[in-house]
Amino acid sequence: MNGPQPDAASVARTLEALRTRRPLVQCLTNTVSANFVANVLLAVGAAPAMVDNPEEAAAFAAIADAVLLNLGTPTAAQAEAMDLAAAAARVAGTPVVLDPIGAGALPWRGAAAARLLAHRPSAIRGNASEIAGLARLIGGPAAGGGGRGVDSRDTPEAVTGAASALLAHADAVSASGAIDHVLGGDQAAPTLVRIAGGTELLARVTATGCALGAVAAAAIAAASDPLAGLVAAHAIFAAASERAADGAAGPGSFAARFLDALASLGPAELAATARIDVVPFQEA
Amino acid sequence: MNGPQPDAASVARTLEALRTRRPLVQCLTNTVSANFVANVLLAVGAAPAMVDNPEEAAAFAAIADAVLLNLGTPTAAQAEAMDLAAAAARVAGTPVVLDPIGAGALPWRGAAAARLLAHRPSAIRGNASEIAGLARLIGGPAAGGGGRGVDSRDTPEAVTGAASALLAHADAVSASGAIDHVLGGDQAAPTLVRIAGGTELLARVTATGCALGAVAAAAIAAASDPLAGLVAAHAIFAAASERAADGAAGPGSFAARFLDALASLGPAELAATARIDVVPFQEA
Amino acid sequence: MNGPQPDAASVARTLEALRTRRPLVQCLTNTVSANFVANVLLAVGAAPAMVDNPEEAAAFAAIADAVLLNLGTPTAAQAEAMDLAAAAARVAGTPVVLDPIGAGALPWRGAAAARLLAHRPSAIRGNASEIAGLARLIGGPAAGGGGRGVDSRDTPEAVTGAASALLAHADAVSASGAIDHVLGGDQAAPTLVRIAGGTELLARVTATGCALGAVAAAAIAAASDPLAGLVAAHAIFAAASERAADGAAGPGSFAARFLDALASLGPAELAATARIDVVPFQEA
Repeated sequence: MNGPQPDAASVARTLEALRTRRPLVQCLTNTVSANFVANVLLAVGAAPAMVDNPEEAAAFAAIADAVLLNLGTPTAAQAEAMDLAAAAARVAGTPVVLDPIGAGALPWRGAAAARLLAHRPSAIRGNASEIAGLARLIGGPAAGGGGRGVDSRDTPEAVTGAASALLAHADAVSASGAIDHVLGGDQAAPTLVRIAGGTELLARVTATGCALGAVAAAAIAAASDPLAGLVAAHAIFAAASERAADGAAGPGSFAARFLDALASLGPAELAATARIDVVPFQEA
Repeated sequence: MNGPQPDAASVARTLEALRTRRPLVQCLTNTVSANFVANVLLAVGAAPAMVDNPEEAAAFAAIADAVLLNLGTPTAAQAEAMDLAAAAARVAGTPVVLDPIGAGALPWRGAAAARLLAHRPSAIRGNASEIAGLARLIGGPAAGGGGRGVDSRDTPEAVTGAASALLAHADAVSASGAIDHVLGGDQAAPTLVRIAGGTELLARVTATGCALGAVAAAAIAAASDPLAGLVAAHAIFAAASERAADGAAGPGSFAARFLDALASLGPAELAATARIDVVPFQEA
Repeated sequence: MNGPQPDAASVARTLEALRTRRPLVQCLTNTVSANFVANVLLAVGAAPAMVDNPEEAAAFAAIADAVLLNLGTPTAAQAEAMDLAAAAARVAGTPVVLDPIGAGALPWRGAAAARLLAHRPSAIRGNASEIAGLARLIGGPAAGGGGRGVDSRDTPEAVTGAASALLAHADAVSASGAIDHVLGGDQAAPTLVRIAGGTELLARVTATGCALGAVAAAAIAAASDPLAGLVAAHAIFAAASERAADGAAGPGSFAARFLDALASLGPAELAATARIDVVPFQEA
């Protein structure tokens, strides 16, 4: 749980390990993102498998290298499958990433998210409003105004208290934004890692956040610990999206270029361009 | 209901208002189109949210700016969610667009479409055969041979009588084709608006019709009235698709270029290129 | 069942017939692939229709030109719809293609696949591990180690015995790989057809295998017999993907270029470039 602090070299090592290991990531995700999530995983060097029905989810979680639980468009059956997969993953020691889309705004999926937290995922990834909303569900700080739909109305800086509260239920927590914030490590004295970079075009293409959650699952399966994996996923997205934005004519061409960039991004380039800093975390 | 007659200037104003307001569009749509619909909404400047389960659909319809009901691949649960969303939207005054894919050809979803009409959507959008098929369901004129699958075998010109009959159940109705036909305004003496342009490549990319329905929902949320919004959506699609087709090597490159064009299309360019005419509507 | 042996000229004729007839392909497929499958069918010249609920699947199978059954992300309702569609298609004489994703690895969908085999599909298409896994389900040879997720760990060469065993349940069977292997014709003395070509980029884009199954359904609807159609689909994919890979910067640009290439590939070019050989099949 307490590896060395993440830096540009560690994220490069994680990318290299991901390419070597090629983690099989079981995705229980929304209908909007399923295709893009699978293509992002393939591009970055992982293997996707969308096994998300209650009849098969638990058995597959026991053989997968990581599990993504994304609450974007849950059906009753899929929510049940997520619960089964999370339980089976915990028994098998398979890392789980939770993406709590809309959990703070919609009570039904909020209850589903709370049930999933009980299985203690390895990591939670969301935009700032989603992290704030999820923290409120478990009695965390009331900071953050909540989102409407999938957009964030908060900044990652404003929700570090909420992210910290969620460390009672997960090993690492991240909030995406202009500068991504990732918390993890020792729960009593967590490490706060900031990752700069990326592009505003990420917000003009649907399911990029979902795909980041999937890459986080793959990276955690390949990394020394959940914090290192989650930081690596954010750094990979920042680097690949910056390269893809350079020369893109809009969101359509950006999306294709982003997949190309994920596939060609090498550990050395990642190490050379990643902008990561570790700062002391002080609860407000 | 009876705003000034749509023209190039009014569609430009609607696009400008859409960009300013950034309407949150709740989409209950089919699995084929979910990703593309979300990307089109993001590209044009709206915000998508795919909340389509019975547990959450009604609550979200009360906070969304517009609701899209698309019958492309309905499950029993999704059909129930559409009914709940349509009812909640009506109470909240949220505009609703119905895209009745296959409703005339398949009795089960035909019955679902008829239930949705009872909630009086703001607009109905379909290809010509779908409009003819839906009108037959409610006892409208028998013109139009119906489609098989999602293709149209009729022209918009041939189904204006059917579209007119549907104005008993919606404020505006459109039939897509080589020249799109939109009817609305005063039900006793409706206005018929024709929008020229577009490209045959739209028919070579799946879910472009579904995405047009979603943009219609966003535009109606931003426009002075449903007819103005529906006309604006058709004009936006015609302009962006024409620009995207210029230089496309086929349907794959066209789809990416279309998203780019939607994102960069400005109100001034739209006003300068839109080919809209308003013609007297005479029931045959 | 026993047409002339497939060759470059016959696959070109099938492509030409497909373009003329424009088969309506009913797809019961997974959420990851639905959009891409529809776009591939449109690009190649067929018409997709995703009617996959139990309430409508049988009625539509009776009017469709071909049916695709893909087990990628089955729900209980979709599995029931597949059973109904397969039964209705058999009565109507509509060709059916089964893509048994994961059937050998996951018992629940394995049972679903076995039920579908009872309706005798026209063709079965899978990667080598899937063909081996499906054959084991029906007591076929134990060759082939099975896959984990959607990847193949076997070569087509290694599973021709398994493919042969499946000819008791289908008219033609194919296993994709570096060199695709297709078996069909006379069950007692099957013809083995090998199709070379393609690109490794196909494995870096999700749902390309699913899309091949859909094109197989369209091609069988247009071909003289199931073996000829299945071989044509493999040859079309090999030719279009080779052309698309030439100049692609990665999987994102490849996917768009692949759709462009499918749309522009002509019968003459296909005849000139297809690398097909028919070899005696000898059970090991």
